Amino acid sequence: GKKVLIVYAHQEPKSLNGSLKRVAVEELSKQGCTVMVSDLYAMQFEPRATRNDIVGCLHNSEEFNYGMETWEAYKRGSLSKDVIEEQKKVQEADLLIFQFPLYWFSMPAIMKGWMDRVLVQGFAHEFPNCYDSGLLKNKLALFSFTTGGTKEMYAKGSISGDIRYLLWPMQHGIMHFCGVKVLAPHICFAPEYVSEEKRMEMLIAWAERLKTLWEEKPINCTPEWYFK
Amino acid sequence: GKKVLIVYAHQEPKSLNGSLKRVAVEELSKQGCTVMVSDLYAMQFEPRATRNDIVGCLHNSEEFNYGMETWEAYKRGSLSKDVIEEQKKVQEADLLIFQFPLYWFSMPAIMKGWMDRVLVQGFAHEFPNCYDSGLLKNKLALFSFTTGGTKEMYAKGSISGDIRYLLWPMQHGIMHFCGVKVLAPHICFAPEYVSEEKRMEMLIAWAERLKTLWEEKPINCTPEWYFK
Repeated sequence: GKKVLIVYAHQEPKSLNGSLKRVAVEELSKQGCTVMVSDLYAMQFEPRATRNDIVGCLHNSEEFNYGMETWEAYKRGSLSKDVIEEQKKVQEADLLIFQFPLYWFSMPAIMKGWMDRVLVQGFAHEFPNCYDSGLLKNKLALFSFTTGGTKEMYAKGSISGDIRYLLWPMQHGIMHFCGVKVLAPHICFAPEYVSEEKRMEMLIAWAERLKTLWEEKPINCTPEWYFK
Repeated sequence: GKKVLIVYAHQEPKSLNGSLKRVAVEELSKQGCTVMVSDLYAMQFEPRATRNDIVGCLHNSEEFNYGMETWEAYKRGSLSKDVIEEQKKVQEADLLIFQFPLYWFSMPAIMKGWMDRVLVQGFAHEFPNCYDSGLLKNKLALFSFTTGGTKEMYAKGSISGDIRYLLWPMQHGIMHFCGVKVLAPHICFAPEYVSEEKRMEMLIAWAERLKTLWEEKPINCTPEWYFK
């Protein structure tokens, strides 16, 4: 069976994001997958990239360089426990699902902190092993999120621009950089402004998509996909 | 004199980011500006958007909705103290400068948390008052950052794409949404891979730019600027 890590960032289990997460756990488990969940708010996950992420002495205590220190600490096995635990889950996973409400054209800070702290050099990439030769190649990622704005607001030519514009930093800048192949995003537009019935349809559509997820081909990770 | 808020996110005062921040404080003070600094790591700024941001009772304690609760709390004056303090600085400022190292095609989580928590509905925007009629209109913003990659890596057609692609969520999705006009970004490419002399030139170039900053015209906040 495949292994899936769901990185989930919503404060409220009763939210649509909470339901989307549960639907994914249920559907994927039913398929025989092993599903791990990192419930970031429940874990009170630390988003700040600080000296505390390195256990023991620093490589250069004169001038703190987070990227350098975490790279060195990774090699020595002296990253902080919470970071190592997340890296283990990533290492085991065939698929990473990021489930979150869009905050400011991006992910909530608590999830950005997961990216900043977990995907350190040596573990996820190590120059020149980035992009297609990133260290997490052979894994898949999928960004599943809800928006405040409607689908029409995120159409090309509309004020908020094509929704794909804002996927570039997340899908290309983070996942593709680490060698991860990206499945099409799953977007629930403006769930706060639709009926309970429509929200139920959103959950069903997600469950349906998950049934054939493993047959999906990754998107073509080029600027053309984003900005054509 | 003009008022400037520098929102600064680097762990190390001796870093180039630290020096860029000091140069800005010195140069702008010399011009007679009042300069406020939010040194996020030094403040141990909380990046997580949680129930703790609302003092006292919730509007709807059955189902926690961060956007709704912070909007209501803003109107009642019951946001947490740290958020209110940042909002006061923003309110006073004519110009916001964001100084940070680029982390994963975006700002560090601690600064994303500043955006998530400070720019709440009611304060920074309130539908339909967004984009050109956002509540922070008549203010300017400038993103000043350092990169790991070289200028060549962030050229159009290169693997990391035009650097402007990744500015869309920050400049358009956040600042423009709040009505803030955006000055051209100030980018120091790959300072870790250049000589001490080159880094000194970077500091001088920033000081020089600041001398005539108030004469600059904002960028044209349209998809064309980003994706042409």
